[in-house]
Amino acid sequence: MTYVRDAWYVAGWTPDLPRDAPSAISILGEPVVLWWADGVLRAHEDRCLHRLAPLSSGRCEGASLRCMYHGLLYDAEGLCIEIPGQDKIPDGARIRSYPVVDRHSWAWVWMGDPALADPALIPPAVGFDDPDYILGRGFLDYAAEARLINDNLLDFSHLTYVHAASFQATGVFADSLPKITPLERGIRVERWVTDAPGLPQRGGSGPADVWSTYDFLIPGVLLMTGGNFPVGTAQASNFGPPDFALVEGGTTFTSQAVTPTGDGTARYFFSWGPHRNHGDEAMRDALMEVAAMAFAEDKAMIEGQQRIIDATPDPRIMPTVHDKGVTIFNRLVERLAAA
Amino acid sequence: MTYVRDAWYVAGWTPDLPRDAPSAISILGEPVVLWWADGVLRAHEDRCLHRLAPLSSGRCEGASLRCMYHGLLYDAEGLCIEIPGQDKIPDGARIRSYPVVDRHSWAWVWMGDPALADPALIPPAVGFDDPDYILGRGFLDYAAEARLINDNLLDFSHLTYVHAASFQATGVFADSLPKITPLERGIRVERWVTDAPGLPQRGGSGPADVWSTYDFLIPGVLLMTGGNFPVGTAQASNFGPPDFALVEGGTTFTSQAVTPTGDGTARYFFSWGPHRNHGDEAMRDALMEVAAMAFAEDKAMIEGQQRIIDATPDPRIMPTVHDKGVTIFNRLVERLAAA
Amino acid sequence: MTYVRDAWYVAGWTPDLPRDAPSAISILGEPVVLWWADGVLRAHEDRCLHRLAPLSSGRCEGASLRCMYHGLLYDAEGLCIEIPGQDKIPDGARIRSYPVVDRHSWAWVWMGDPALADPALIPPAVGFDDPDYILGRGFLDYAAEARLINDNLLDFSHLTYVHAASFQATGVFADSLPKITPLERGIRVERWVTDAPGLPQRGGSGPADVWSTYDFLIPGVLLMTGGNFPVGTAQASNFGPPDFALVEGGTTFTSQAVTPTGDGTARYFFSWGPHRNHGDEAMRDALMEVAAMAFAEDKAMIEGQQRIIDATPDPRIMPTVHDKGVTIFNRLVERLAAA
Repeated sequence: MTYVRDAWYVAGWTPDLPRDAPSAISILGEPVVLWWADGVLRAHEDRCLHRLAPLSSGRCEGASLRCMYHGLLYDAEGLCIEIPGQDKIPDGARIRSYPVVDRHSWAWVWMGDPALADPALIPPAVGFDDPDYILGRGFLDYAAEARLINDNLLDFSHLTYVHAASFQATGVFADSLPKITPLERGIRVERWVTDAPGLPQRGGSGPADVWSTYDFLIPGVLLMTGGNFPVGTAQASNFGPPDFALVEGGTTFTSQAVTPTGDGTARYFFSWGPHRNHGDEAMRDALMEVAAMAFAEDKAMIEGQQRIIDATPDPRIMPTVHDKGVTIFNRLVERLAAA
Repeated sequence: MTYVRDAWYVAGWTPDLPRDAPSAISILGEPVVLWWADGVLRAHEDRCLHRLAPLSSGRCEGASLRCMYHGLLYDAEGLCIEIPGQDKIPDGARIRSYPVVDRHSWAWVWMGDPALADPALIPPAVGFDDPDYILGRGFLDYAAEARLINDNLLDFSHLTYVHAASFQATGVFADSLPKITPLERGIRVERWVTDAPGLPQRGGSGPADVWSTYDFLIPGVLLMTGGNFPVGTAQASNFGPPDFALVEGGTTFTSQAVTPTGDGTARYFFSWGPHRNHGDEAMRDALMEVAAMAFAEDKAMIEGQQRIIDATPDPRIMPTVHDKGVTIFNRLVERLAAA
Repeated sequence: MTYVRDAWYVAGWTPDLPRDAPSAISILGEPVVLWWADGVLRAHEDRCLHRLAPLSSGRCEGASLRCMYHGLLYDAEGLCIEIPGQDKIPDGARIRSYPVVDRHSWAWVWMGDPALADPALIPPAVGFDDPDYILGRGFLDYAAEARLINDNLLDFSHLTYVHAASFQATGVFADSLPKITPLERGIRVERWVTDAPGLPQRGGSGPADVWSTYDFLIPGVLLMTGGNFPVGTAQASNFGPPDFALVEGGTTFTSQAVTPTGDGTARYFFSWGPHRNHGDEAMRDALMEVAAMAFAEDKAMIEGQQRIIDATPDPRIMPTVHDKGVTIFNRLVERLAAA
């Protein structure tokens, strides 16, 4: 499967990465160790130069990371600075460093050419330090290609079928098309659902015009918000973005990121929660319960899809009108991957 | 491994296939969905045209089956008749249909050329609608090639060793040969065990002459009956089939079917129970307990055999005199598979 | 991975091999059955000639082993001596026999040319029949190449890091080098740790000069002893082997053997316990608790190392000064394997 190398991949929730011990993640099949060098997040290949032991089984020593097999010590740049029992360290003894940024409560790792690692390319997610939102978080490991999860997130017509129970989604998602706008590194998907009750856990007591908008960005990051507006707002806004001053409730934010870990496997990170003006910790917890149910529905369907693809000698798809976003995004992936 | 495509494979016990939801099975490595279109059994490839989601995770809607990923709807012939949000359905949008017949409580699926799917080729099993027999049923999933299970069922000399405990089998199965007769699509195996106690769970209180006969038919279906006769009947019958008017008890029927599900895996379906004149529900339950023990003995041996074969660079066998049935049947398989 | 075929591999602890039933082991990917022919240990390919069923699922009958699938019988030399229901046994019907020796409580199996199977090449381990030692034993199955376990045992500098907790190992193992002497089929590793407390479970109440010496022999067998001596003994011995008449305590023996079972798997056998003059059953039990902790530490590190190697397209190592023993031994392996 083709993925973009010159991109920032989510490697973990930074609040969940222990400060005094390294963490392991695999990205695009490459083992990566995350650790804090005197409080600064670092990412390196998870592989000691000596005999390829995992540095994620190592020990943090201030601004250094020690392999706990035979004791080789590495500095924050990945340079080997100590070999126990040996005076001389071979020239160029250095493990690969990956550019890494701690932002929006996520560890973003750049898997491509370090010279191109521009932090401005990091999607503008919402972290736990954001004063406006009360968020919960989690992750799921998939036995499926990241591409299949991306496809799922790029076409919300599946809500009508996969999430009829969890999100109480109606036929509108399948029967009508959202507005899709290509962005430089992704797409924007906007939709009005008019005169609807809205999700009770989100404060929906309808009827309201429910607005939702999300960006899906390279390499596989979804950022979504929206809210409930007075009935008629959609029409008054000419079915475009509303004036948020009119919002009556239901504003939440969700960040979701899909990281290809290996061949046929992926890790799916997510957060969700209400705007502080429209909800509280109890609403966040209720939304996380909905998310647990909904994301399990997706996982069952997508892993089933992967099993069928694996059992298919020459897999071909038949795109539908709902695949516009999928098609635009995957073409962008192919173009950036080829660059 | 070579299997015959132009054959009816058992895909499930129809009493166990839910009427209101589809079921999944894999046959010869192909994912198949079984479902009831307004009460009529259907079999299709278990793969939505759109993005290859499993239709076995879908929803039955009268005579139609809906993919529950993005809502595509298929009719009983596999024709796509609805794509949500889209007016036009592409010409030829159709999933593969497999000929399927509900007979003898089994779903029989034809994996080869549909034009050759003659229901007359379905082996004459005994189902739960048969007034003469009181049957139990079950299935086991094997981590072994179907061929190895067929071989097991084609040579009952293994009873003496594998089933000494469960079937209380004596040396007669290994020390003497049954009569084997080639059939158009299989073989017939007949045997007298004279002056024997018989299996207590089968009503055997001996001594009796115990007659057994089974057909083993393409693609891998065993149909077996027999009974206990007065001592001397074997001799009086010139060791051929007895006059069933003389039977004193012990008549049971067992249907067994071996379906290759994938590379190195198989599903083994079985039923067993007494003739109504010779037993009751209690005897059926006792026989099913014997079967559970015996079929676990087979499974352990055959899965062990598969592991050894997998660890053998150039596996060769050394046929014995007991392999006559195995050899005849497997040559038939090779011949039909090549046709 | 390259291993020496002309070598004695440990296949099991003979006190743990049931006398009345065969046992299965895989060595270098070959299935081997171990059994007692009238009390004499035998080793053959674990594969019936007939249809490749595992003979380890068979039955011991005096000096013969019967396949319990269809009843073929083999004598102690692997010759087929009975085929049920068949008078004639094909010429040359014989399973492969492996030379096997029951010595030092281990079953040693020769995997190469039988003509070269010289029992004098069996490493001089210590078994449970040795009157001087009170030993415990066990084994662990690894999801890693035997070679990686050998490497671990050939370089004790890992004690400082991997076993800081279990063995209370100090920096001396990593900071200084042991004396390494090449042997005809392995290496000898000797070390003094001076003025040290010693391991409490070993009777160490320090300070003492602690001597340890081990041979690591083809194909992967470690034999180790040592003891606590008065402070100053190391110096007085010119840091060479001490006069054991001076030993004050702490003498133990450990035999460890690494057997490659298959591709990326190994079985690691071990024993440990005190000399009868320096300990008792309670000390043995305390040492086995330390071993359980320490060998789990090794297993976690080495299986992690294997996972990283598997994820590395072109794995290369960077040897250190501690790799002298590893390098000498692995060159010997390559030389003997090529011979």
